[in-house]
Amino acid sequence: MNWPKHGSNPQYIYKETGIPKPEKWIDFSANINPLGSPQILKEKWLDFYQKINDYPDPHTQVLKKLISNKTAVDPESILLGNGGAELIALLGRILAGGNVLLIEPAFSEYESACSANDCQIFYHQLDEPAWELNVEEITSKLSAIDAVFLCTPNNPTGIGYSNETIVKLLEECKKTDTLLILDEAFYDFLEDYTPISPLIKEYSNLVIIRSMTKMFAIPGLRLGYILANPRVIDKLSGYQPHWSVNALAMSAGELFLQDTYFVQNIVNYIRSEREKLFSFFLAEGFEFSPSQVNFYLLRDPLEKEQMPLFTFLLRRGIVPRHTFNFPGLEGKWLRFAIKSTEENNYLMEVFEEWRQLP
Amino acid sequence: MNWPKHGSNPQYIYKETGIPKPEKWIDFSANINPLGSPQILKEKWLDFYQKINDYPDPHTQVLKKLISNKTAVDPESILLGNGGAELIALLGRILAGGNVLLIEPAFSEYESACSANDCQIFYHQLDEPAWELNVEEITSKLSAIDAVFLCTPNNPTGIGYSNETIVKLLEECKKTDTLLILDEAFYDFLEDYTPISPLIKEYSNLVIIRSMTKMFAIPGLRLGYILANPRVIDKLSGYQPHWSVNALAMSAGELFLQDTYFVQNIVNYIRSEREKLFSFFLAEGFEFSPSQVNFYLLRDPLEKEQMPLFTFLLRRGIVPRHTFNFPGLEGKWLRFAIKSTEENNYLMEVFEEWRQLP
Repeated sequence: MNWPKHGSNPQYIYKETGIPKPEKWIDFSANINPLGSPQILKEKWLDFYQKINDYPDPHTQVLKKLISNKTAVDPESILLGNGGAELIALLGRILAGGNVLLIEPAFSEYESACSANDCQIFYHQLDEPAWELNVEEITSKLSAIDAVFLCTPNNPTGIGYSNETIVKLLEECKKTDTLLILDEAFYDFLEDYTPISPLIKEYSNLVIIRSMTKMFAIPGLRLGYILANPRVIDKLSGYQPHWSVNALAMSAGELFLQDTYFVQNIVNYIRSEREKLFSFFLAEGFEFSPSQVNFYLLRDPLEKEQMPLFTFLLRRGIVPRHTFNFPGLEGKWLRFAIKSTEENNYLMEVFEEWRQLP
Repeated sequence: MNWPKHGSNPQYIYKETGIPKPEKWIDFSANINPLGSPQILKEKWLDFYQKINDYPDPHTQVLKKLISNKTAVDPESILLGNGGAELIALLGRILAGGNVLLIEPAFSEYESACSANDCQIFYHQLDEPAWELNVEEITSKLSAIDAVFLCTPNNPTGIGYSNETIVKLLEECKKTDTLLILDEAFYDFLEDYTPISPLIKEYSNLVIIRSMTKMFAIPGLRLGYILANPRVIDKLSGYQPHWSVNALAMSAGELFLQDTYFVQNIVNYIRSEREKLFSFFLAEGFEFSPSQVNFYLLRDPLEKEQMPLFTFLLRRGIVPRHTFNFPGLEGKWLRFAIKSTEENNYLMEVFEEWRQLP
């Protein structure tokens, strides 16, 4: 099978599996805040129309200043991008021909970007069901490595690694002149998060990727940024196309960063939904990853293969994310976004149906 | 002086020159259709809001099909991009370390993208005031060249080169296994244009870059495409970030390609404004490039340097494009977009004022 590389766009998964697309379906395969963008964006939407007729600011000055204020990182240490995916592609470019270590399972774009740029790729596999990160095990692999990619909170498991662990890894990476690239695309869904970004000033080998598309529900607009030492930022921006961040994404980002309560409300909502779902899964005997964010891995331990469950769900209009292209998972789990109350309730109903199948 | 690399965003030119930004100003430095986007986009704008909450189709299937229908080029020969600038950056990537020949003056992004990718850059300079393209002169320079960049209709002169000339160059490039990259960003402003795109099937060394941001006035949204042999398309897309084309640009593009009369109306409007402006310039003794599209080069032959004219215009709220980073021009000309009737009339008034200066 030619599995889609990513979630979202369910038409491709229905096409690939040959399952007829039901009249109604819910996309659990894209890890986007289920309540949508801040209301202020809708209110400003008509005014935003005129922004399409002008070139965006190629230096993204206003938004960079707002991010600088929020993160306490200098503007020279910030690069805006056309979504996290563009920033990962740029990182692949500056690592061209080098050696990279991927901590797996993880978002597949690191591998795509690095292999497109002829990197030699090494892997460090975290093991289910806790996917613990043991720095000592990684240290022995660092000697000839130019960059380590670590996704935290991890996509697809939803597990966030502690700052203590990360700083330990960062110190080890420093000794071998290795970049530590943290993909924090989902950091703002964590409940108790102490930013690691202030360490940018201290560690020239620390690179942090952030996305604004998940929390603010703008995957169609595309917006992300990198925090890193100015020398890394300069290298990256040398390869970035002019006007890469479109004017609407930029203006939306400016609005979002001025909203204080939005993120907290979403985090609370997601936590309450997650607790409800996890209690249900425990009671019904499903296994799940100990996620701290807005998605989780799940499997039915009563089944040897998860494919029957996957196709059952697709027929019921529930679209999970397959895990065939996550090293170490290879289809043994399914990934689900935490959606709205109503959608999660429907998910639980369908799981109950599944349990009651003869 | 640290001149901005491109037009648009006049705040940077006012800042750099130290001239106070007047209360009202008109941006003649961005070559965008002055009448704005097709009305249908405004009508659909509220419906478009919901598109931001979903990932765009990473395969851009619908839009690719529409472009295929319009250009009679197979979908496998089409790559959509986040504006022409992204496509040029991808071309630079596949040419990394190679030898490229730039036909100058031309859009400066070819040089940026190629030098970022360590290409060795050679130049073929076209000479004012006709900027004629003599294929024989270029032929002798092709032997070790991997790709030639030709901007036609040319930015900044506005001159379109004939298909006869281009095919002659294409034949020569074929002999030396050289890609001929035509940047047709402004092709749809030409009055009598016979598409060269059907030759994609015949010439595997032909690459055509097109932009939808100029004619359809969506530089803030970003949309462009490349037409080329499927093997070239595959190489390019291997380096392209996932979801590079945002959902709004894609949906807007789909709307625009279904509109038949829009382009013709704009072309007529621009022609009539251009004729009026050029008669005025002739009468007032200004020199201008024989542009066939929506912008032109201009200089006052009575002045040795154009800088006084440039600063005079900036003070009067008219923002031309400087030409310091166009090889062969180096500030000896100014570039102006053809704007709305009212704006062009104001431009002529200010030029009259300039002529009457003591």
